[in-house]
Amino acid sequence: MNKNLVLLFFTAFVLSNCAFAKAQQSDSLQLRKIYDAALTQGHSYQWLDYLSNQIGSRLSGSSGAEKAVAWTKAQLDSIGLDKVWLQPVMVPKWVRGTPEFAYIETGIGETTQVPICALGGSVATPNGGIKAGVVEVMGIKELQALGEEKVKGKIVFFNRPMQDELIETFRAYGGCVDQRYAGAMEAAKLGAVGVVVRSVTHSIDDYPHTGSMSYGDLPANKRIPAAAISTKGANLLSTLLALNPDTKFAYSMFCKNYPDVQSYNVIGEITGSEYPNRYMVVGGHLDSWDLGDGSHDDGAGVVQSMEVLRLMKVIGYKPKHSIRVVLFMNEENGLRGGRAYAESVKRKNEKHVFALESDAGGFTPRGFSFDSDDRNFNQVLSWKPLFAPYLIHYFAQGGSGADIGPLKDVSEGVVLAGLRPDSQRYFDHHHAANDTFDAVNKRELELGAATMTSLIYMMDNYIVKPARLIQGPIKD
Amino acid sequence: MNKNLVLLFFTAFVLSNCAFAKAQQSDSLQLRKIYDAALTQGHSYQWLDYLSNQIGSRLSGSSGAEKAVAWTKAQLDSIGLDKVWLQPVMVPKWVRGTPEFAYIETGIGETTQVPICALGGSVATPNGGIKAGVVEVMGIKELQALGEEKVKGKIVFFNRPMQDELIETFRAYGGCVDQRYAGAMEAAKLGAVGVVVRSVTHSIDDYPHTGSMSYGDLPANKRIPAAAISTKGANLLSTLLALNPDTKFAYSMFCKNYPDVQSYNVIGEITGSEYPNRYMVVGGHLDSWDLGDGSHDDGAGVVQSMEVLRLMKVIGYKPKHSIRVVLFMNEENGLRGGRAYAESVKRKNEKHVFALESDAGGFTPRGFSFDSDDRNFNQVLSWKPLFAPYLIHYFAQGGSGADIGPLKDVSEGVVLAGLRPDSQRYFDHHHAANDTFDAVNKRELELGAATMTSLIYMMDNYIVKPARLIQGPIKD
Repeated sequence: MNKNLVLLFFTAFVLSNCAFAKAQQSDSLQLRKIYDAALTQGHSYQWLDYLSNQIGSRLSGSSGAEKAVAWTKAQLDSIGLDKVWLQPVMVPKWVRGTPEFAYIETGIGETTQVPICALGGSVATPNGGIKAGVVEVMGIKELQALGEEKVKGKIVFFNRPMQDELIETFRAYGGCVDQRYAGAMEAAKLGAVGVVVRSVTHSIDDYPHTGSMSYGDLPANKRIPAAAISTKGANLLSTLLALNPDTKFAYSMFCKNYPDVQSYNVIGEITGSEYPNRYMVVGGHLDSWDLGDGSHDDGAGVVQSMEVLRLMKVIGYKPKHSIRVVLFMNEENGLRGGRAYAESVKRKNEKHVFALESDAGGFTPRGFSFDSDDRNFNQVLSWKPLFAPYLIHYFAQGGSGADIGPLKDVSEGVVLAGLRPDSQRYFDHHHAANDTFDAVNKRELELGAATMTSLIYMMDNYIVKPARLIQGPIKD
Repeated sequence: MNKNLVLLFFTAFVLSNCAFAKAQQSDSLQLRKIYDAALTQGHSYQWLDYLSNQIGSRLSGSSGAEKAVAWTKAQLDSIGLDKVWLQPVMVPKWVRGTPEFAYIETGIGETTQVPICALGGSVATPNGGIKAGVVEVMGIKELQALGEEKVKGKIVFFNRPMQDELIETFRAYGGCVDQRYAGAMEAAKLGAVGVVVRSVTHSIDDYPHTGSMSYGDLPANKRIPAAAISTKGANLLSTLLALNPDTKFAYSMFCKNYPDVQSYNVIGEITGSEYPNRYMVVGGHLDSWDLGDGSHDDGAGVVQSMEVLRLMKVIGYKPKHSIRVVLFMNEENGLRGGRAYAESVKRKNEKHVFALESDAGGFTPRGFSFDSDDRNFNQVLSWKPLFAPYLIHYFAQGGSGADIGPLKDVSEGVVLAGLRPDSQRYFDHHHAANDTFDAVNKRELELGAATMTSLIYMMDNYIVKPARLIQGPIKD
């Protein structure tokens, strides 16, 4: 290499590093502004207080869900966005009805009540309930190995616990949830009369945890009632079965499926200053299960997503891309909102470049997971020092959020991300009656909103566009 | 460099890297064992349940503290350590007595009760309490600027809040706590008749938070009663003062200081297999304030420290150094236990090479802070990849723990460290009636114990000895 060339390279290197350093410094100041605003002028916690304590649970098709649609729209109307609208979506309507009732019978007149709840979508028990012998299994494979002979006429008790040794609790959840989702379908195929599933939580307590289940394409007359039992109840039932295999389980459930009803995604937008026709989405889901008030799942994600746009207003940041907050309806038992949004994106050919979802609780944020091309992911990794002062350290490939998933098929190259809060306490509350406002810490919630806003800010300024968009002229 | 030399260096490089990789792999397996044992066979949560719910608060000199000494000693006796003993230490005895009472008076007959508690070590109010006008200040400097004329005969109300924008809440605590500790002393010097201090917490609620205070060398007849007021109470008082500067504050406190009483540090030891006369300490403090049951401060640190030695037994790890668990008495209002332990170390010339304290709550562990020479700290940084699977990412220089601090002066080159859990919720509970067992999450507590055990394991194998110890022959 000749000397001039060396000098040239050296100069270019120094200049590019200066520019880089300057950009980093300005980004660093912008992040500090965002966190300061979130922690000292935040509004997410007050919003969550109203959503949880004044509206409460928001199962799709319920009056709570409808109230939440109207109220969040009104809140978005009040913060000075460029557009706010409702996107119609038909949702399933399932109603729990009278609270469930269950007991274990170890002998004539010897019964112990245990806490259960119907799984979402389950059919009711016949009038008078069901009482039958119990087959305990640790999973679907074990059930299938038993075969029809040992299962027919019985209640199948799925009792595989979460694996405590897994550090990330969502992995432990993933290892159990098949029992809840497909247990009834598989047990019905073998002639079982009902299923009861160990609640998917690490905590040993009295809360049954509901959640979605499916009968697949089983005909209506083959569908059997499916309940979740609290972990203490599951441990008791297992112990009593070990002592006496003839132990019976009895339960009554009064839930019912109704025809679909009209509901809405709630959407607000700040129109981009440079790329108004390229979109970035931040969202959570507005529906919840019916047992608690859905503060962590996903009230937190809803108010944090609203807060992202509000914080941009507070600090006076005008995004280059159009930034949309989308409050999705029906994540829990249908994903109809996520699908409806993606269909609309496809129909209108709206170029979506980035989407971020918060649906893992309102706990201290640790980072993000990404479903992204390598160029964007590697760029995100280069931002680690910017996030370090806020103790945000976790940036991993794999997984984002259920509601934004359908965007992948309709917007080529879209980068998806999910907020990853500390997960240790999440399943203590997930889908249970103790998913309530008091379990959310104000600062943790606000830190999450600030962290999300910071990522959107960085993406708005630096996202690497998909090759196809870069090569051709952009039709904005 | 000649070719042979290059080859030699290359070979040495490859070999050292192989050895390094092998060591890392074996350490990685050992850490996995530790975390597995903590999360699936842990005992810290059951211990904390007993300590919090069967024994309860443990203020130095109280019957709770004495019960905690006897019970933790019995627990250590039961886990097969090589030695367990009590180390005598004289501690102060301060008793709250009848619960405090306070109200704000905005006019004749117009009063509002507010929650207060005496600060630890405060004198009582005179019989019948104190009622006086109020001077609100944001700190000691502002008080001093007012001077005697404006302060004499008044109650000084210190109302500087924690700074919400600081990410690490201990920094915000550090920015406020001077009001609590020295406020009464400084106000008394200017003729004030009492002080009331805003509780040092981020949460806006009804809990007053106690804590230590000092009159310095003020004579007994100059000492004025010092109370903490809940943050809601503080906000109300401030608002009412703004509306009417003649607003009065009235309070009664019945606390009393008694002569010192006998108490103990509780100590257990696994004697080292290679260096029995070099010691590593892991500890927390056994005393707590009297309002809650001290689950986070510092029941968590106590049971986690006990668990470190128990986990070594469970996984069959025989440490090279002697590992001591030390449950220090009287961290909260005297640090007598920490000082007594250090004095004993000095007297017996026991070489202490490492000490780790857990005294920042039982929340999800994030990492450690160190008070260490650079060689050891840099080595710790090289362990980051080993800790990453457990989401342990924070390794910083600066600060360790109050009880182990005195070791610095008696054991040359000792490396000190403090566990750093997530700090967002800590001050919601700190020194208040809601520092209770239900605020501790089992997995978070267990992850902390595993993280501590892992650091002790790594230090036991790799600690870089101080130069003086390396050069001379070690007298073990």
